[in-house]
Amino acid sequence: MCVLGLGLIGGSVVRAAAAAGREVFGYNRSVEAVAAAKFDGFDATANLDEALQRAADSNALIVLAVPMPALPIMLEHVRGIAAECPLTDVISVKGAVLQEVQKFGLLDNFVGSHPMAGTAHSGWAAGNAGLFIGAPWVVSVDDHVDAHVWAEVTRLALDCRAVVVPARSDEHDAAAAAISHLPHLFAETLAVIAGEVPLAFALAAGSFRDGTRVAATAPDLVRAMCEANSAQLLPALDHGIDLLTRARDTLRASGSVAELVETGHAARMRYDSFSRPEIITTVVGTDNWRAELAAAGRAGGVIRSALPVLGSRE
Amino acid sequence: MCVLGLGLIGGSVVRAAAAAGREVFGYNRSVEAVAAAKFDGFDATANLDEALQRAADSNALIVLAVPMPALPIMLEHVRGIAAECPLTDVISVKGAVLQEVQKFGLLDNFVGSHPMAGTAHSGWAAGNAGLFIGAPWVVSVDDHVDAHVWAEVTRLALDCRAVVVPARSDEHDAAAAAISHLPHLFAETLAVIAGEVPLAFALAAGSFRDGTRVAATAPDLVRAMCEANSAQLLPALDHGIDLLTRARDTLRASGSVAELVETGHAARMRYDSFSRPEIITTVVGTDNWRAELAAAGRAGGVIRSALPVLGSRE
Repeated sequence: MCVLGLGLIGGSVVRAAAAAGREVFGYNRSVEAVAAAKFDGFDATANLDEALQRAADSNALIVLAVPMPALPIMLEHVRGIAAECPLTDVISVKGAVLQEVQKFGLLDNFVGSHPMAGTAHSGWAAGNAGLFIGAPWVVSVDDHVDAHVWAEVTRLALDCRAVVVPARSDEHDAAAAAISHLPHLFAETLAVIAGEVPLAFALAAGSFRDGTRVAATAPDLVRAMCEANSAQLLPALDHGIDLLTRARDTLRASGSVAELVETGHAARMRYDSFSRPEIITTVVGTDNWRAELAAAGRAGGVIRSALPVLGSRE
Repeated sequence: MCVLGLGLIGGSVVRAAAAAGREVFGYNRSVEAVAAAKFDGFDATANLDEALQRAADSNALIVLAVPMPALPIMLEHVRGIAAECPLTDVISVKGAVLQEVQKFGLLDNFVGSHPMAGTAHSGWAAGNAGLFIGAPWVVSVDDHVDAHVWAEVTRLALDCRAVVVPARSDEHDAAAAAISHLPHLFAETLAVIAGEVPLAFALAAGSFRDGTRVAATAPDLVRAMCEANSAQLLPALDHGIDLLTRARDTLRASGSVAELVETGHAARMRYDSFSRPEIITTVVGTDNWRAELAAAGRAGGVIRSALPVLGSRE
């Protein structure tokens, strides 16, 4: 398999896939990152076309692990050199990636994916083979997806020791706005406000450190994921502003924040007790398999070992 | 010393003070909590007047560690039985406590304090002797505070292995709104929004878990601290709503969240590199000592060992 982009996520995929016994090679634009990966014993190049030719020769799975803004140039090269290879991505928005892939005519062999893992750090050095252990890894079940490519991407996620959540790209993006992009903007906001109050940093303890941890993420990465998902982030932001405004109004009028605090606590309690039934009965490629998996994922279902694929000996 | 209230904070103060070799006894309204504290080997009673009489007899430091709504009834009993004892509190808002204490005529022997530590759990069982190790513990330097009571409260905080931050009550409350109360309301908001999106809990990872951790705090405690600090929380909420609204507007108009993300990241970086010089030169009780300590605390200064007190042999 071929990983394009050796940052935190791509670099961790390379390490995790290699640890699982896969043959894996990587490309990165920066010669420093390539040198670092080679120094750590991995197969890497700064020559994109060379990497893609090697992928084409072996029909390797290509993993797009570049930031969103770099995606079009990658897809142009993939189209030119390795258009027949199975293709996935590990970028944090799925709708925008899907649109780009479609624009380049590469939809047939494409199944988007997104490992829900990360740290506030970035770059090759920040990656590690264990990053995905136990993490949810979305593998998309959009209408176009091919059963065999889907199974191949799912195997990669399982080899990285993630649990696979099947989901439609649009539903993924709405969820990502709520659980990742909006939390990033909230963290930035808290950091800005505390930065303007004398004494605030001097007193900051656990709730501030936790609540602003993701504000330490590189601004370019935060912008890339928030801005690429604006269609889903905007309504979530509206909702957040509305809830806070209502709390502000009741606090001012009657001295109470009861409604927000009680519904928030109840929601968080539901999250803590959220169960994750294993998906085991679906046969990939049978009638309606995509909708069946999307429904199971929505209900909290996860795939922990490879599902049977229709017409396959696996 | 006498601790009124054996919840997370009061119970941890009892354990930490005992571990430091202090004689400490506690009161709690609930006989179950008292029984649990006794079972763990501590001196506790459910009889408030008995505890206060014992404090009065030995001129013990009284620590108010009850939730804000229970404060007036405690102060009424303190006034009746132990009005001459040095008095402090470990409640998370300082201005509202100060007002109550003044209302009961107990200001002369009172120095407010606030250990900036906690967990999402509450009650006696959640406490531990190490809760305050290395944590900032505000000891107030309002205009009225007596040097000897101040030194006594500071010694308690140092015995609990906290670092003492001297601060005025109003400045503490403005900082607490920014680093604790607003983060709580933001966490509640994120939990509510995620709870309404199918798939969100299924995909929730680190940024959501961290960003909503404090939403697991008991709603009564969150309400008590937010509502008691509404004077400082309201402008912070206004500011937060304003920043998010501007980000929403630029995202909608030009697809960018650059301003919020970049200023947030810069603020968080300043927090990570915030230094904590030790305060060593102030002599407590000399001219202007309170203002000098307030300025040092505002600049990040902390007290790690007891300062000299004018007219004291210590």
